[in-house]
Amino acid sequence: MPSLHDATRGRLLFGGDYNPEQWPEEVWADDVRLMKEAGVNSVTVGVFSWARIEPRPGAREFGWLDRLMDLLHAHGVGVVLATPTSSPPPWMGALHPETLPRAEDGTVVSYGSRQHFCPSSPVYRRYAAALTEDLAARYADHPALTVWHINNEYCTHCWCDETAAHFRRWLTARHTTTDALNEAWGTAFWSQRYDTWSQVLPPRKAQYMRNPAQVLDFKRFTSDALLECFTAERDIVARHSPHIPVTTNFMPMWAGQDGWAWAEQEDVVSVDVYPDSRDPQGGQYNAMLADMTRSQAGGPWMLMEQAAGGVNWRPVNQPKPAGLNRLWSLQSVARGADAVCYFQWRQSRQGAEKFHSAMLPHAGEGGRTFGEVKRIGAELARIGGKVAGTHSTADVAVLHDWDAWWASAQEGRPSTLVDYPDLVRAWHRALWENGTATDFARPESGLDGYRVVVVPQLYLLRDAAVDNLIAYVRGGGTLVCGFFTGVADEDDRVRPGGMDSRLRELFGIRRVHEWWPLDAGTTVECEGLRGTLWSEELEPDGSAETVSAYRGGELDGLPAVLRKGSAWYVSTLPEPEALRGLLGRVTREAGVRPVLEGLPEGVEAVRRGGLLFLLHHGSSTVTVELPEGGWRDLLTGTAAGGRVELGRFGVAVLEDGPA
Amino acid sequence: MPSLHDATRGRLLFGGDYNPEQWPEEVWADDVRLMKEAGVNSVTVGVFSWARIEPRPGAREFGWLDRLMDLLHAHGVGVVLATPTSSPPPWMGALHPETLPRAEDGTVVSYGSRQHFCPSSPVYRRYAAALTEDLAARYADHPALTVWHINNEYCTHCWCDETAAHFRRWLTARHTTTDALNEAWGTAFWSQRYDTWSQVLPPRKAQYMRNPAQVLDFKRFTSDALLECFTAERDIVARHSPHIPVTTNFMPMWAGQDGWAWAEQEDVVSVDVYPDSRDPQGGQYNAMLADMTRSQAGGPWMLMEQAAGGVNWRPVNQPKPAGLNRLWSLQSVARGADAVCYFQWRQSRQGAEKFHSAMLPHAGEGGRTFGEVKRIGAELARIGGKVAGTHSTADVAVLHDWDAWWASAQEGRPSTLVDYPDLVRAWHRALWENGTATDFARPESGLDGYRVVVVPQLYLLRDAAVDNLIAYVRGGGTLVCGFFTGVADEDDRVRPGGMDSRLRELFGIRRVHEWWPLDAGTTVECEGLRGTLWSEELEPDGSAETVSAYRGGELDGLPAVLRKGSAWYVSTLPEPEALRGLLGRVTREAGVRPVLEGLPEGVEAVRRGGLLFLLHHGSSTVTVELPEGGWRDLLTGTAAGGRVELGRFGVAVLEDGPA
Amino acid sequence: MPSLHDATRGRLLFGGDYNPEQWPEEVWADDVRLMKEAGVNSVTVGVFSWARIEPRPGAREFGWLDRLMDLLHAHGVGVVLATPTSSPPPWMGALHPETLPRAEDGTVVSYGSRQHFCPSSPVYRRYAAALTEDLAARYADHPALTVWHINNEYCTHCWCDETAAHFRRWLTARHTTTDALNEAWGTAFWSQRYDTWSQVLPPRKAQYMRNPAQVLDFKRFTSDALLECFTAERDIVARHSPHIPVTTNFMPMWAGQDGWAWAEQEDVVSVDVYPDSRDPQGGQYNAMLADMTRSQAGGPWMLMEQAAGGVNWRPVNQPKPAGLNRLWSLQSVARGADAVCYFQWRQSRQGAEKFHSAMLPHAGEGGRTFGEVKRIGAELARIGGKVAGTHSTADVAVLHDWDAWWASAQEGRPSTLVDYPDLVRAWHRALWENGTATDFARPESGLDGYRVVVVPQLYLLRDAAVDNLIAYVRGGGTLVCGFFTGVADEDDRVRPGGMDSRLRELFGIRRVHEWWPLDAGTTVECEGLRGTLWSEELEPDGSAETVSAYRGGELDGLPAVLRKGSAWYVSTLPEPEALRGLLGRVTREAGVRPVLEGLPEGVEAVRRGGLLFLLHHGSSTVTVELPEGGWRDLLTGTAAGGRVELGRFGVAVLEDGPA
Repeated sequence: MPSLHDATRGRLLFGGDYNPEQWPEEVWADDVRLMKEAGVNSVTVGVFSWARIEPRPGAREFGWLDRLMDLLHAHGVGVVLATPTSSPPPWMGALHPETLPRAEDGTVVSYGSRQHFCPSSPVYRRYAAALTEDLAARYADHPALTVWHINNEYCTHCWCDETAAHFRRWLTARHTTTDALNEAWGTAFWSQRYDTWSQVLPPRKAQYMRNPAQVLDFKRFTSDALLECFTAERDIVARHSPHIPVTTNFMPMWAGQDGWAWAEQEDVVSVDVYPDSRDPQGGQYNAMLADMTRSQAGGPWMLMEQAAGGVNWRPVNQPKPAGLNRLWSLQSVARGADAVCYFQWRQSRQGAEKFHSAMLPHAGEGGRTFGEVKRIGAELARIGGKVAGTHSTADVAVLHDWDAWWASAQEGRPSTLVDYPDLVRAWHRALWENGTATDFARPESGLDGYRVVVVPQLYLLRDAAVDNLIAYVRGGGTLVCGFFTGVADEDDRVRPGGMDSRLRELFGIRRVHEWWPLDAGTTVECEGLRGTLWSEELEPDGSAETVSAYRGGELDGLPAVLRKGSAWYVSTLPEPEALRGLLGRVTREAGVRPVLEGLPEGVEAVRRGGLLFLLHHGSSTVTVELPEGGWRDLLTGTAAGGRVELGRFGVAVLEDGPA
Repeated sequence: MPSLHDATRGRLLFGGDYNPEQWPEEVWADDVRLMKEAGVNSVTVGVFSWARIEPRPGAREFGWLDRLMDLLHAHGVGVVLATPTSSPPPWMGALHPETLPRAEDGTVVSYGSRQHFCPSSPVYRRYAAALTEDLAARYADHPALTVWHINNEYCTHCWCDETAAHFRRWLTARHTTTDALNEAWGTAFWSQRYDTWSQVLPPRKAQYMRNPAQVLDFKRFTSDALLECFTAERDIVARHSPHIPVTTNFMPMWAGQDGWAWAEQEDVVSVDVYPDSRDPQGGQYNAMLADMTRSQAGGPWMLMEQAAGGVNWRPVNQPKPAGLNRLWSLQSVARGADAVCYFQWRQSRQGAEKFHSAMLPHAGEGGRTFGEVKRIGAELARIGGKVAGTHSTADVAVLHDWDAWWASAQEGRPSTLVDYPDLVRAWHRALWENGTATDFARPESGLDGYRVVVVPQLYLLRDAAVDNLIAYVRGGGTLVCGFFTGVADEDDRVRPGGMDSRLRELFGIRRVHEWWPLDAGTTVECEGLRGTLWSEELEPDGSAETVSAYRGGELDGLPAVLRKGSAWYVSTLPEPEALRGLLGRVTREAGVRPVLEGLPEGVEAVRRGGLLFLLHHGSSTVTVELPEGGWRDLLTGTAAGGRVELGRFGVAVLEDGPA
Repeated sequence: MPSLHDATRGRLLFGGDYNPEQWPEEVWADDVRLMKEAGVNSVTVGVFSWARIEPRPGAREFGWLDRLMDLLHAHGVGVVLATPTSSPPPWMGALHPETLPRAEDGTVVSYGSRQHFCPSSPVYRRYAAALTEDLAARYADHPALTVWHINNEYCTHCWCDETAAHFRRWLTARHTTTDALNEAWGTAFWSQRYDTWSQVLPPRKAQYMRNPAQVLDFKRFTSDALLECFTAERDIVARHSPHIPVTTNFMPMWAGQDGWAWAEQEDVVSVDVYPDSRDPQGGQYNAMLADMTRSQAGGPWMLMEQAAGGVNWRPVNQPKPAGLNRLWSLQSVARGADAVCYFQWRQSRQGAEKFHSAMLPHAGEGGRTFGEVKRIGAELARIGGKVAGTHSTADVAVLHDWDAWWASAQEGRPSTLVDYPDLVRAWHRALWENGTATDFARPESGLDGYRVVVVPQLYLLRDAAVDNLIAYVRGGGTLVCGFFTGVADEDDRVRPGGMDSRLRELFGIRRVHEWWPLDAGTTVECEGLRGTLWSEELEPDGSAETVSAYRGGELDGLPAVLRKGSAWYVSTLPEPEALRGLLGRVTREAGVRPVLEGLPEGVEAVRRGGLLFLLHHGSSTVTVELPEGGWRDLLTGTAAGGRVELGRFGVAVLEDGPA
């Protein structure tokens, strides 16, 4: 099986999306000149080129792409070649309106933007396969080709009649009979029993809340329908070039695709990452996405898109301050990225994203942004040989699951204020601020390698996952579990007692009387901490220690945090400082140490392979005392002595060696 | 005519919606055991059972229901049997898409939730009637049957073409000719004149504001169209079992049905009541809904649904604190309920409402919620014989009218901040806090029995209602009238001068120069009070006393509150304390006394039959001094002495008798 | 060419929309009596009379209008006669559903409100033309007729298939070939290339951001499509009565019509003006709309609609306090209006606007509002002979352009907080508060007559406009230019470097590194001012003076305001006081003086013809010292001495003459 290694070959990839079809060919020469200047060794080509290659049904215009591939190869730039299937040309929507998605209310999503295809449309799939076939045949052996990039940010949803038929086929495969479907969906409620498959529809616009199990299955189906689109194209390119790894770029923490299931189908896991430069926790968010993507990849991964400056889809879009692009780029490398790429190489003059930043901005090669890009390119080249392909380890795993997310994000829940990604981020943040190296894992993954497993929230927990968690604790592992976990089974059926009975036994909970979500802007006092978002009326069974009890309010004196041996249950979301303290205590007791002790505020330390990355997210200048031994800073090429000084957004990449 | 008495027979009913189709039959035995334990003597069955009874067009599966009815009867539990017509099975929407409602913009409302039927659809009506016929024939003489429950929370709206045709028939009956329609709707404005009936449509999606008289008639029509659905089914069940009373459950203060008109068609008036447990005025809201429902029923009524704990449709859903369920349940009884029921008996594990609380929650029979339910059941059994069927009296009536509400809730009004239900609630609250027993009445009702009549706001006032109010005052009654009343006639046509001239004469107003609605968050100073929401530039005619004048602002010195004899006009909404003071003065002068004088803060006293209910809405422990005489507390069965002590949410039900 | 002068003939017109079709004819006699009393000499008739004149297809009922025209003429009231084509009768939508607009998502906009026509519909246009033909033939020579009023507030948008076909014809005329279209729209981005014209659609509902050049062209097209509707009717009435001027009423600062292009097609420019009476800057807004309309008209203009009191479309609608109607009416006259009219004469009792105020309100002729109307009528009659037809001059022009507005208001921009009309208003406000007489002009207009030209923002700047601005500065003019100007060319294509290179040279800017829009609620410190909304990372080329530099933050020390000779560039939006100061300095240096020096706070001075208007927008009583010379107040008919005292909302209209 090909892997990212086949593309990196001992280097870090550096570059970005390159859309030369937007520019006259005379600009291309300027592009390759500036790519060389910036140290660009990889560009992603063809993402939105369908109308260029197939300007009318069945036509093929590859000449420009031939010239481009040759030009890039001649200048030593490798090509991540995309199938352009995410944005069909206008002729498809005009000729085959049934390929256009329909919204929940049945209205048509027109062409004129991007991603306007129904993933269940046979016509769309046929055209996409045909084009992929020809593209793969033509470039399979081109020397510039390094990675196949299928489609782009799969994210379309559709509720049309073709989707309905496809959904029914998917449901038949899953549930076999309408009786089983009715049982799984609980259609006895509200008289929703389906008598024949033909009656089953996607969850369309309705009077009131829709069936949550139907909605959950539709989310699963949509992820799978898109995955079929991916694997169909992947199989075509793999047949033509079995030696070339295949990827598609995820959106970060994106609800539309089950990232675990998709990653299994990719040779290379890649992701698009757009933290907000004004977010004080932007660095943590970047770290979290890196940890998650590395965990999906099981090793080095590809940062397929980030912004050199600002984006253009936030209400207010600010550029990155000087140094932030470099900081976050090197942070991604520290956390496993073997490729640092951008959307896009040259900023567009036209179209919907002309105010999205690029490596080469409107300000041109003299602009501040391009200056920083060149510095990053040079530094990646300097450290690439020591970094590329190396792995990192962690003693802590955070469990994350799309089913649990999907099931928890529905109508009719106890609280609309509880947001699954926010919870994952809050728990990861506590670990990150403690300097604890962290992986992500699936609820059913083998967890033996971890000293501590953290569950921010898994509202839905399959039986096998319950088994897994219990076995993990019995095997000596430490489990810390956030509120409203283990409530539902695979079909979003509430487990008797409102929480799985074995889990209750694990944590020493006799009974969950009631969930008490908190109103917006309110908190709940507990011993030693203040809780947010949620609280629970728990009746302990006497076997657990109450680590913290609620104080005042309706739950006065009841346990907020319970601990039974190495199993912890946290029935609220502690404020950041308190959650950090709690996880600090738990990990310390479990023998987990931070990557480096005694770091100044704002400094992150990461080990990858034999290297130690120091990343400073603050503005002041700080001094970091290094561990015993001799250290050399690969970025400066100088010996570090016993300490390193880091200015605003400063980075050091240290190698243990002769001082 | 059958009545609620035929179902209660000297008891208070206690129970809830029971949806056994969601559970395997082995659970049923557990259900009846726990019902007995909780004192449940009535359950509502079949509300959402259409797909279970008629799994495909024309099929009938009654076996399970036969077994259930027998089981319940064997255990002494009466059945409120529902026609399951509020949620057609999927086969109906699939086979007859024209039965599905269409939204204002023409998009289809699909099945997959509930209440997805067009009330004007002949196909829907035909299926509903056929099923009702068979259901009624089968169970008319079943000994468990106590009440027929038609459909559920009628609330669908539809703008489809069949609705349009039905609307035209309704309009033809109302207006006879298109000329009269054009006159009533004022279609000379904006060139909306209809030349033929066939041009008339429901008020669909439009560029700008729609014709308000058309919208008003469409609201009337929709209420009537739903009422036709009700009466059609009612007539069927009544034919089969003339001795069994019939009801349908209202939503509280619900705009979709004219509650007065509907109540006339019911043997039993029932309502679903869901105050927010976090609302400091939740107790008053519960009292208001009880007063309104009792007034609609003309006596005892049925609390068809409430929540034992939290609901699941608010943004944040909290349970009820210990004791609140009991307090509000007994408050409903105090104010005329002869049935205290819940949605639902056993909390669902699946479906859209699995996080809606139930009498028997996920926590099971050991849960706190079920404990309180059992206590309530026992107490209702204890007091039932003394309470059931008894009446109460009031000296004050609040006027309420759906036409006025509908007409005032439209686009293009002086202020979108004025909300009709909020006004009704504000005025009722002042009376409630004063301890004044209060009924509701229609603007045209006989009012002679009341010392004081309160009009929070009747923007639209029919001629007969104007006559009625004037006759009432001439007959010695005291009338207190809120702002923006009497502005429009039955067709939402502004009366000359902006307020009916006879009303102006009644209050001593020569001219209404301008309405001055207040901006959000602003108030207006008046002598002795602060006004909110609204003010008016009034020119008095010299015959009235200015009770309070505006101070400062554009209306400085103009009258805010006018009084001419026993007719009061209040041109703003006084802040709660001031409105309470104003109504205290008015009622006192009219000889109205509170139920009990000198009550501690938070304690409500209600008389029903010969009993005195004391209900404590606060948290502190308070002592209530009782009137002369000997009192016995029916809940404890002990003599009360001269005083009663009430803790948080405490209740006493006192009978005058030997101490 | 006829002009407004043909209608005014030395008087100021005073009156309003008159909709007698809403009233029985016996009311008409009362109307003309009260019109005489109020000094009304002009009414607008027929705006919404289509269904009255053509109650069914092809019918003609003119009798009522004959009688009305005769009646008005007999009472000396001139008629602005409208073609009633803005609101087709219901029969048209019922018989020809394709005349109804479709929204972006394809749903139908029904009749039942107003303006429910697709401007591209041939059927609609055919009916409109036929009716206009007959109307014009019948009344062309009626002695009451003074002005033709075509349609009303053109504002419909449509995305239907007929619109699509029309849009394609318009695009073909503009771009000639699909290649040119693809080039202009930048369809190489996101694979949007059009292979044939038939594929091109209006920008309908899409997954994500739509092509901005397509959206821009669609806005241009919609303005032009509506303009075709206008000119078609204009040509008909002009053929019948070449001596009668033609107008259509603009909505103020309305995005839907390119006011400059439309004004060229009108004999009379008229506008509907609805400042919020609670807006502290309402007077400035009224002034700005007057300045803009006067500039479009090139002289006297017609205030076609304003409100005598409140409107009914704001969330909270308050009346005008006493005197405000008079103040704003005379302010409009001071700034060039030769007609002061209202929507509407008599307040409706029915329909969607019955709570919109009128000259003759619900309160009737005894109401406060009508009292003020009579006073205004009398005063306009008094000053009319001296005012009507006169012109005014200004040394400052503000540039305004619909293309720039349209292009800047799209998705995917740096900041959604930047609102073009707000910017224009902020800059005009600074000039207004400085007492600087101001015109508006187009970017390509001859600017030689102005000492100072102000550009609040012209994001899109055509090449000719760049030429024009540069020539203007070279010719000695002073140019002050707000941020984010000159960024895009005519097709919304970003100019190389992010700002036109010649403009950069003009202002002394070497490079625009980045735009830094500000977050909501934040500001940026600069030397001598505080900036809002926006900042820019500019690299000066050394040829300009830094008037103010950023202080602190990411841009510390970089220029905020640059000046190179008489060319100023302001890269943020200074707070109001600071912008006022900056423009005060610039205009002073350019030799521009305020209309009057040393005015008390809140007093506005305007010169028109030989008259000096003093308008007091405040509540206190103030004294204005008059310039040397003798002054007579035309409103009081008395000599003014050396000073004038003005109370709340006070006005003086002064003529230089014997004291």
